[in-house]
Amino acid sequence: MSEKMRAIWKRRPGRGIEVGEADIPIIKDDEVLIKVKKRAICGTDLHIYQWNEWSQNRIKPPVIIGHEFYGEIVEIGKNVKEFKVGELVTAEMHVVCNHCYLCRTGKAHLCENVVILGVDANGAFADYVAVPALNLWRVKKDIPEEYFAIYDPFGNAVHTVFEGDMPTKTVLITGAGPIGAMAAGIAKAAGASLVIVSEPNEYRRDLAKKMGADVVVNPFEENLVEIVMELTDGEGVDNVLEMSGVAPALLEGLKAIKKGGILVLLGIFNKDVTVDFNELIIFKGIKIKGVNGRKMYDTWYRMDGLLRSGKIDLSPIITHRFPMEEIEKGLLLMEEGKAGKVILT
Amino acid sequence: MSEKMRAIWKRRPGRGIEVGEADIPIIKDDEVLIKVKKRAICGTDLHIYQWNEWSQNRIKPPVIIGHEFYGEIVEIGKNVKEFKVGELVTAEMHVVCNHCYLCRTGKAHLCENVVILGVDANGAFADYVAVPALNLWRVKKDIPEEYFAIYDPFGNAVHTVFEGDMPTKTVLITGAGPIGAMAAGIAKAAGASLVIVSEPNEYRRDLAKKMGADVVVNPFEENLVEIVMELTDGEGVDNVLEMSGVAPALLEGLKAIKKGGILVLLGIFNKDVTVDFNELIIFKGIKIKGVNGRKMYDTWYRMDGLLRSGKIDLSPIITHRFPMEEIEKGLLLMEEGKAGKVILT
Amino acid sequence: MSEKMRAIWKRRPGRGIEVGEADIPIIKDDEVLIKVKKRAICGTDLHIYQWNEWSQNRIKPPVIIGHEFYGEIVEIGKNVKEFKVGELVTAEMHVVCNHCYLCRTGKAHLCENVVILGVDANGAFADYVAVPALNLWRVKKDIPEEYFAIYDPFGNAVHTVFEGDMPTKTVLITGAGPIGAMAAGIAKAAGASLVIVSEPNEYRRDLAKKMGADVVVNPFEENLVEIVMELTDGEGVDNVLEMSGVAPALLEGLKAIKKGGILVLLGIFNKDVTVDFNELIIFKGIKIKGVNGRKMYDTWYRMDGLLRSGKIDLSPIITHRFPMEEIEKGLLLMEEGKAGKVILT
Amino acid sequence: MSEKMRAIWKRRPGRGIEVGEADIPIIKDDEVLIKVKKRAICGTDLHIYQWNEWSQNRIKPPVIIGHEFYGEIVEIGKNVKEFKVGELVTAEMHVVCNHCYLCRTGKAHLCENVVILGVDANGAFADYVAVPALNLWRVKKDIPEEYFAIYDPFGNAVHTVFEGDMPTKTVLITGAGPIGAMAAGIAKAAGASLVIVSEPNEYRRDLAKKMGADVVVNPFEENLVEIVMELTDGEGVDNVLEMSGVAPALLEGLKAIKKGGILVLLGIFNKDVTVDFNELIIFKGIKIKGVNGRKMYDTWYRMDGLLRSGKIDLSPIITHRFPMEEIEKGLLLMEEGKAGKVILT
Repeated sequence: MSEKMRAIWKRRPGRGIEVGEADIPIIKDDEVLIKVKKRAICGTDLHIYQWNEWSQNRIKPPVIIGHEFYGEIVEIGKNVKEFKVGELVTAEMHVVCNHCYLCRTGKAHLCENVVILGVDANGAFADYVAVPALNLWRVKKDIPEEYFAIYDPFGNAVHTVFEGDMPTKTVLITGAGPIGAMAAGIAKAAGASLVIVSEPNEYRRDLAKKMGADVVVNPFEENLVEIVMELTDGEGVDNVLEMSGVAPALLEGLKAIKKGGILVLLGIFNKDVTVDFNELIIFKGIKIKGVNGRKMYDTWYRMDGLLRSGKIDLSPIITHRFPMEEIEKGLLLMEEGKAGKVILT
Repeated sequence: MSEKMRAIWKRRPGRGIEVGEADIPIIKDDEVLIKVKKRAICGTDLHIYQWNEWSQNRIKPPVIIGHEFYGEIVEIGKNVKEFKVGELVTAEMHVVCNHCYLCRTGKAHLCENVVILGVDANGAFADYVAVPALNLWRVKKDIPEEYFAIYDPFGNAVHTVFEGDMPTKTVLITGAGPIGAMAAGIAKAAGASLVIVSEPNEYRRDLAKKMGADVVVNPFEENLVEIVMELTDGEGVDNVLEMSGVAPALLEGLKAIKKGGILVLLGIFNKDVTVDFNELIIFKGIKIKGVNGRKMYDTWYRMDGLLRSGKIDLSPIITHRFPMEEIEKGLLLMEEGKAGKVILT
Repeated sequence: MSEKMRAIWKRRPGRGIEVGEADIPIIKDDEVLIKVKKRAICGTDLHIYQWNEWSQNRIKPPVIIGHEFYGEIVEIGKNVKEFKVGELVTAEMHVVCNHCYLCRTGKAHLCENVVILGVDANGAFADYVAVPALNLWRVKKDIPEEYFAIYDPFGNAVHTVFEGDMPTKTVLITGAGPIGAMAAGIAKAAGASLVIVSEPNEYRRDLAKKMGADVVVNPFEENLVEIVMELTDGEGVDNVLEMSGVAPALLEGLKAIKKGGILVLLGIFNKDVTVDFNELIIFKGIKIKGVNGRKMYDTWYRMDGLLRSGKIDLSPIITHRFPMEEIEKGLLLMEEGKAGKVILT
Repeated sequence: MSEKMRAIWKRRPGRGIEVGEADIPIIKDDEVLIKVKKRAICGTDLHIYQWNEWSQNRIKPPVIIGHEFYGEIVEIGKNVKEFKVGELVTAEMHVVCNHCYLCRTGKAHLCENVVILGVDANGAFADYVAVPALNLWRVKKDIPEEYFAIYDPFGNAVHTVFEGDMPTKTVLITGAGPIGAMAAGIAKAAGASLVIVSEPNEYRRDLAKKMGADVVVNPFEENLVEIVMELTDGEGVDNVLEMSGVAPALLEGLKAIKKGGILVLLGIFNKDVTVDFNELIIFKGIKIKGVNGRKMYDTWYRMDGLLRSGKIDLSPIITHRFPMEEIEKGLLLMEEGKAGKVILT
């Protein structure tokens, strides 16, 4: 197969991407070739498009971007016994080493030797993508098919929410990008008694509300900590999920958390943060957990379970759909903060 | 206050109870006196009425029975600072020693020196009851008041459910008396993806269904283990909550549980059970947890949180209401398995 | 390589084994070939020799037995990048599927599709053995080399002990075969304040004592439960590790355990066990955990860590050494209960 | 009893304390009166002596200071049934409300309404002290009596260590004041495979070494992070216990910790700390836990258990003994960093 396919390339440093052509991938013995049906744009893809500082350090062009997708298996490597041609699958695009301490003790999502397809190697914004069989996740018939295109960010949200203690408890989510908004719905589905979302962008607050947030707050216009205290009998919330990557949000979260509570960190900050460790962490006896990626594959089982429970509806989060070639439309909407998840068909 | 009040007495060994009179209790410095508004009949009250083997060993007549209730504080002891006259409260009726190893390490529900009001000392099936301030739980305005009359059995169900791993997971509940039926609703509210209830009594299966069970099974007419396997892709359920106290239910639960799953035991058996520990426990790598009472007071906070989450409705479980004097009507309905919770007003 | 090597065969049903010849294994792309330096005899090997009921159901002769060993890598498959010729290694001989729910959620030791080398396929009682690279564990220079020959049973003991709560707590171990005796030393090294071992065989009691047990009890001549209660101020032990597979030991363990304690089950019973679930499990609020194999690979890291802590000495457990051909001598000693671990050189 | 006793007073703002007289306390119904046998000076007492910023905000003179002690019960309140005159006891001096959310869910050490005897109310640097019966802890005959005078700081160390994951794991302790030095011994006793202590003060490094540290590092003269990486095969330590309250120690700890590791914070910082949350917390997937006081009373049971295990010797930490009147000698030695624990007889 040295035939050609369409592909979205990051070909060189600087803002921008290119819609172009690539060879259809040749699979290894333990890989499968997938004909991609739908893709979704990640904030990471936007960062690569914008060529921000992180991209400059991490990306080695040329590379085919994209890591959120699902599709149909069209070819399988000779060692692959668990899957067959014709099956619909999505995939964990963190390809890990399986040999390091972290991989061998249930923390593969922290693997030092990880290669992320769509970031460190060619990804899924193309007609075909090659993925190791160990990374595949089957599309389930009783779950809307399109949702599998966003299992990657849905998984970030699920991983973050399940690091907290949800059932019967109260939650503050700071930041309602698509992952934060999904987290609001997940927290409710996991039994949270009260989900408060703080987000300055109105479009995103609406999205969080649609996903299930009980209360949304504009932290630029309202006093978030006071509102939390009023809603929690002055005790603060049991859990804070920090998904904004903004220092004031972190600090307000620390003030809004109950003594003995749990703060989960997913948002990436654009600079160092200065914190009063005594008053906000030590004397409050709180737990802080850094979160990265998705648990392999506990998070993935929980995703299926959540959607099967009937307690969460992902449809509001998918706000736009474009043909793959019109990816830039989606990127620009996301840049303006006017999109949930954008699907590329 | 040596005035008289109405009271339900167990005055002597043998089947039966008596509606009679008693002195209004004199409270100690750290107690409050509560004017009871509503009561609910527990299976334990039925056992005392029937004078079963457990009752014969435990109860020392005469004693005023009843431990499920709520009411209004009408008098407070001189050391009580946390409550005031006029507040509505329910109570944990396990009065513990606060000094033993178990009390001092978060396991007060297992206290060796426990005195249960309504069992070991005078209880709440009367106009007034005296309870230590440490055991009180405030009625919350945003929760239907009557529900506080059944916080005790609701708490048994909550304690049991939260010993499992609910969110996104599958559950089999064996036995749908009122506690089992409530557990079905709690498991769903806590995010379970699938709740199967096994129960031979049709009235109770209906109750479980109303409380939120996804699937109900009559284990006398259907093959429970096969049904569970069909519904779980042949893997079994993540959790089994044993609430029947019947040996075959326990054994079927052990067969229906997934490897690595959790079995929680609340139902009391009427005799020893013979188990294949190798195949059903050791090789499956499961966890078994014995459950008793309510966690003091983690379970109580979770009860408020569950009801505030809006994800559970207790109204179907309250099936009958009688004046306190007509308690025997309720006991007989329960004996026939034709009642959920019976409220005494 | 179609050369020949020495091998210990189970060639046919019935008592016995054969010292014979076999082809040196041809490795697959993801395997390595190991020249075995030392082996150790497992109780499982004895069961295969005796041809007990379990063996009759599980073993499909002819098969080369043996799964405890270490050796030197002499050849590597073409996909193996993590290891090189000349390295000393031992191995987890449970070869798992990596695709099932259990493998993908940190419970690979419970994999339904496991193939155990030396049981289901050819093992290590030979000059050479082929093992997947993913299953290898490096010999560490700061740990006595011979200990790696017994990492498999040491791992069973470590897995069992770490399912309990050891540091500062009390422990009863019922059964002091080699794994039980090692568990005594591991529990002490993990910070247990008191380790009591119950074992009728004097040779084994001595072994447990040498490994670090604080108190050893002959349950046929002494009242185990009374002794435990005396040593624990009448409260019972925090942990029971059942390693005998004998019903009375399990029942005494359940009586000797503190309310809220943990019972870990490793020993395999020769028949069903009848238990008073009410008094011994439910009212005591205990946790029971079935244990199987070794956690892959959390247990293995803990083994290295234990030996590096300097807090445990495995030398007393290795009681005999024979040339491989004299394996039957070792089997017969084990059958008499007169051996700890027997090494085959 | 309006008789007089000797007492160490903080009578007014500013540096200094006074040796003087006080009325012997009158006990309440649920308290006991203790004749103090030995006391120990806490860093907190030094802060009160120095009148640092924390003291200025917290202390309301006049108050009798001191909260580390043990003694003999000489009188019991009328409601006290668990203790009798003549018993030797020490005490948890955090007197909590038992009614708040934190007290009722196993987090009494975080109680909002706590009154600390010796800080917020009269303490133990006197001939007699009144303490609620619920706060007492019995002196055990099989543990050296003097150790009970330092159960309070020993408990801080035990609480901190047990928030980590010790058995078989590696640990870095930053800061070796008396609590840090004790933590080194506790970590070893709890089964840590490697304990590294970082401390600039030579006297304290020696103390940490005597208590059981495997490696001590002077972070002003050596590269702590490099040393940790060398000793841990480049992976970092599993646990960091921050006990210095110094920002560079915290930052080095975050660099020295393994991905997925645990950082426990006990040291109080003298100002806010600026941290790269992305690289040091989020991408590393670590857990951070703030610690305060002692778990009531899990920590206390663990203290007895540790000392009974025979795996820790507290004698090196007690470096000086003075009559109570010479307390200032001890305070000045502590100020110079030339003392472990100072006992006042």
